Amino acid sequence: MSEVSLQAVKDYLLDLQDRICDALGAEDGAATFREDSWEREQGGGGRSRVLENGAVIEKGGVNFSHVFGEQLPPSATEARPELAGRSFQAMGVSLVIHPKNPYVPTSHANVRFFVAEKEGEAPVWWFGGGFDLTPYYGFEEDVVHWHQTAKVACQPFGKEIYPEFKTWCDDYFYLKHRNEPRGVGGLFFDDLNRFDFDTSFALMRSIGDAYVPAYQPILARRKDHEFGDRERQFQLYRRGRYVEFNLVYDRGTIFGLQSGGRTESILMSLPPLVRWDYDYHPEPNSAESELYHKFLIHREWV
Amino acid sequence: MSEVSLQAVKDYLLDLQDRICDALGAEDGAATFREDSWEREQGGGGRSRVLENGAVIEKGGVNFSHVFGEQLPPSATEARPELAGRSFQAMGVSLVIHPKNPYVPTSHANVRFFVAEKEGEAPVWWFGGGFDLTPYYGFEEDVVHWHQTAKVACQPFGKEIYPEFKTWCDDYFYLKHRNEPRGVGGLFFDDLNRFDFDTSFALMRSIGDAYVPAYQPILARRKDHEFGDRERQFQLYRRGRYVEFNLVYDRGTIFGLQSGGRTESILMSLPPLVRWDYDYHPEPNSAESELYHKFLIHREWV
Repeated sequence: MSEVSLQAVKDYLLDLQDRICDALGAEDGAATFREDSWEREQGGGGRSRVLENGAVIEKGGVNFSHVFGEQLPPSATEARPELAGRSFQAMGVSLVIHPKNPYVPTSHANVRFFVAEKEGEAPVWWFGGGFDLTPYYGFEEDVVHWHQTAKVACQPFGKEIYPEFKTWCDDYFYLKHRNEPRGVGGLFFDDLNRFDFDTSFALMRSIGDAYVPAYQPILARRKDHEFGDRERQFQLYRRGRYVEFNLVYDRGTIFGLQSGGRTESILMSLPPLVRWDYDYHPEPNSAESELYHKFLIHREWV
Repeated sequence: MSEVSLQAVKDYLLDLQDRICDALGAEDGAATFREDSWEREQGGGGRSRVLENGAVIEKGGVNFSHVFGEQLPPSATEARPELAGRSFQAMGVSLVIHPKNPYVPTSHANVRFFVAEKEGEAPVWWFGGGFDLTPYYGFEEDVVHWHQTAKVACQPFGKEIYPEFKTWCDDYFYLKHRNEPRGVGGLFFDDLNRFDFDTSFALMRSIGDAYVPAYQPILARRKDHEFGDRERQFQLYRRGRYVEFNLVYDRGTIFGLQSGGRTESILMSLPPLVRWDYDYHPEPNSAESELYHKFLIHREWV
């Protein structure tokens, strides 16, 4: 087995954060990311970067964090009770971009690395991550491009990886109480240690590096699409689903809040403006109903 | 012990829903409650009443529900594992009122009754409920009136009841990740079966009946208070805390979603329009900072 290097992962993550912020800031053109470094009482900290009221990005956050502690929190050991009580280190980059224009989808990406340690025993480590897309008014070519880029990123690691992580993503980003997927998916993986460290790390890098080429062309293509109040209101309504998912289901959010992370950094994922209407249903055959029938369904895109 | 009567509780709850809707609809003056009756696949159903875009109430819901099932869901047995696996009936009225004017506080009330049954054993029953207030721009006299009404409602059942339920409310409506109470509290109780059925039911009725006299005068007094965009934006921002509490912590919401309740009825508690700003802090000595320093603190109001 190849040697585990926390430092190599950390260097990669900090550089990834820089590259993503540079690319998105350039695409926005008007606003730049504000940086806040923070420390966590129980160990570790982070470097949050948030952009608000840009020309293209209404609110976006790209966060690096590296936290450690005496005990893995319950959200991390639910699926692996044998790790309960171990000390841990967790580091990752997590981002959510909420564009202003309803024709630009919201995107989310995350790559992370965990090590759980116990004296006298070998450390247990794993990678996780992925990226997923949430359109308001969908374009098939955008979703195909998104999934195509995801598939290419997984290719070198075996042809079973993309379908596996694609299905995992569909299963994970699902709102049970709505019987609705959050969006059109992408990739999701967790507990990855099936390869040796070098290969697992390379797969995580390949997915992390694929986010900008997956998202930037969509942002560029749709950011100047004309829209009116109708599209804006539908976007605000659909953003409610994002809030519901993140606060009710998302393990990353719950892990962050349970492990004493910085609340403002964790909740930067919430959209800037959101509406909830009682019992809303889109008009039949409208552009809004198309989202539900053509995009928020189980579908193979590539 | 006095006889348990599900029918008596149900009759009371349906009548309470009528009385509350009549009083709030009259205070609004412009809009009326829309009614939706629904049935639950696994047994039971409800009668939801929702008002949107009123003159005074921007969004409000007053729901009656009566659900039953083969197994109490985990959210109901966490504190009482000995009841796991019992069949149950749950009925209640739950309401949330989000006023348009930022000088009118949001209010929430709930009264509920549970029976958990098992063949060959005596049924276990309990009452729960309470009401709590969430101001944006606080007025001391409003909060004192709210708590005074709460205290009077508890008085006939012993002088220890108000302080106990007031403290319980402070503890329950607390956002740990913000180190912040949701509002200025009121009453909260659960698992109430310390008195016989008749007395417990009478206490629940006394609290249910006290909601309108506690809230209506505040609504009447503040609904025409002048406000501008600054106050509106602060209200939208603070409403975010309401969403965070309901989706992350609220047992009623989680019980509803876990027990297969009607999602639109459960989530009618979410505000109509909400904003999240990254790392917002009110200006020192502003009206907004007063909320944090004078109202969102631990305080005895009567």
